Amino acid sequence: MSKLIAIVGVGLMGGSVAKALRRCHNDTQLIGIAPSRSELEPALELGLIDWAFSLAQLPHIPAELVIACTPISEIVPALAQVAEAVPAHTLFTDVGSTKQEVLEQASRYPWAERFVGAHPLAGSEKSGWSASQGDLFDNRVCILTPTKQNPESMVQRCAEFWQSLGCRIEYLPADVHDEILARTSHLPHIGAAILAALVNPKEKIFTAGGWRDTTRIASGNPQLWQGILLSNAPAIQQALKLFAERLEEFRLALAQADEARLHQLLLEGKVARDDLGS
Amino acid sequence: MSKLIAIVGVGLMGGSVAKALRRCHNDTQLIGIAPSRSELEPALELGLIDWAFSLAQLPHIPAELVIACTPISEIVPALAQVAEAVPAHTLFTDVGSTKQEVLEQASRYPWAERFVGAHPLAGSEKSGWSASQGDLFDNRVCILTPTKQNPESMVQRCAEFWQSLGCRIEYLPADVHDEILARTSHLPHIGAAILAALVNPKEKIFTAGGWRDTTRIASGNPQLWQGILLSNAPAIQQALKLFAERLEEFRLALAQADEARLHQLLLEGKVARDDLGS
Repeated sequence: MSKLIAIVGVGLMGGSVAKALRRCHNDTQLIGIAPSRSELEPALELGLIDWAFSLAQLPHIPAELVIACTPISEIVPALAQVAEAVPAHTLFTDVGSTKQEVLEQASRYPWAERFVGAHPLAGSEKSGWSASQGDLFDNRVCILTPTKQNPESMVQRCAEFWQSLGCRIEYLPADVHDEILARTSHLPHIGAAILAALVNPKEKIFTAGGWRDTTRIASGNPQLWQGILLSNAPAIQQALKLFAERLEEFRLALAQADEARLHQLLLEGKVARDDLGS
Repeated sequence: MSKLIAIVGVGLMGGSVAKALRRCHNDTQLIGIAPSRSELEPALELGLIDWAFSLAQLPHIPAELVIACTPISEIVPALAQVAEAVPAHTLFTDVGSTKQEVLEQASRYPWAERFVGAHPLAGSEKSGWSASQGDLFDNRVCILTPTKQNPESMVQRCAEFWQSLGCRIEYLPADVHDEILARTSHLPHIGAAILAALVNPKEKIFTAGGWRDTTRIASGNPQLWQGILLSNAPAIQQALKLFAERLEEFRLALAQADEARLHQLLLEGKVARDDLGS
């Protein structure tokens, strides 16, 4: 008997999950779910998914797993709707970039114990299912943020699922996840957006590889990122404070022509970056 | 008769100039000059340069062109030494990342009219001649910052030289160059150094492509970058101010959960970045 997996939201992440499943799970049938069925038509026609349903008109779906790949603010509302259509043993997971708020919202629902929060560290500045890639998760870290409500068996099943797509599993409490990701992902996004906005179109010819790389992620979808940033506002505000303090140290070192301090600040960045390679 | 070109400083940039010359100017003999002759031995043995001299012990060098590829603070002192060894018609140029201070220092010397400041927008977070590449300048913009002292013929010869290495030439006044590069290159470097330093070694596994790209240039040589930043301190301080203002706007939008403002800030970054591609 073939397995049944439902993907809610078939954009960059949902599309990549679908393609990875096609590659790694030949025996699995895929259901695409979205606010409107029409947006799923292209994925359906290409055979990326086997069925397509709108969130508002779900039939009974005997799926063993549901993966929410929607924007952050829609994860829990969407899963709440899907929960009405699936059996009581169905496992829920997601790909959300922040975890505390989502898990807090989910905790009000009876299916919260079957929802294991996940964050595969993979993505792109592009969006939409046409940018999706079947190898997006290959050898990437997927952070699971299980709660006390999650039975160990559910966490295990969830880990095995993400491993089957090529991920290496790491576990973090949701609040620790959000605090770290504020510095490794959300702050860099803000920095990229600022650096990009400070250069006007006529000056683009005077940019090189450095600006190109430091600003690439500024091309990300503003609607998606607005949701991510707002859902992790306290941790990001703390990260912004750390960033602003160090920015002020650079300003001071320049104002005072303090070579030693400037060297030290640059060296700390170099040491922190060097071990990762280019 | 073959041409003679001297390269002062044979690191990443000087080595790349040499390799590009080998590729594009078969009839040219190359002289490497460095503070100590011993550091030029490897390049000499590999045939990257034809002769090697220490700055302190220069013979008469009938070079038609001298390219200073030293750290910023050493450009003018090195050229002043080389000027004693070359004919009165020799053209000087450089690869310095900032231009106003260098040209101001050079203006005290009689050879200032033969020194055409250049900044090829090409580089790497790596340093040293072993990281040099013969195609580093292919299709890159090279900014020339001629002064009123430079005869048109000297500027023209300099432009033709950089074009012959594959560069597209743009002209800017030195102060405009420095103000723009503060935002397109120096500020991104500071941002990368800060983002890198805010993530500790144990947290590296929780980084993905975004952090990797936004911090790549933090691996640059702190000694070189300290010199670049200090030589453009006023413009960079102004750029830091613009950056800090926008950082504060992000903080405020997050603190006030101001979706519209956050969206606008992210959109401005996206619009500014999108036309450059990934």
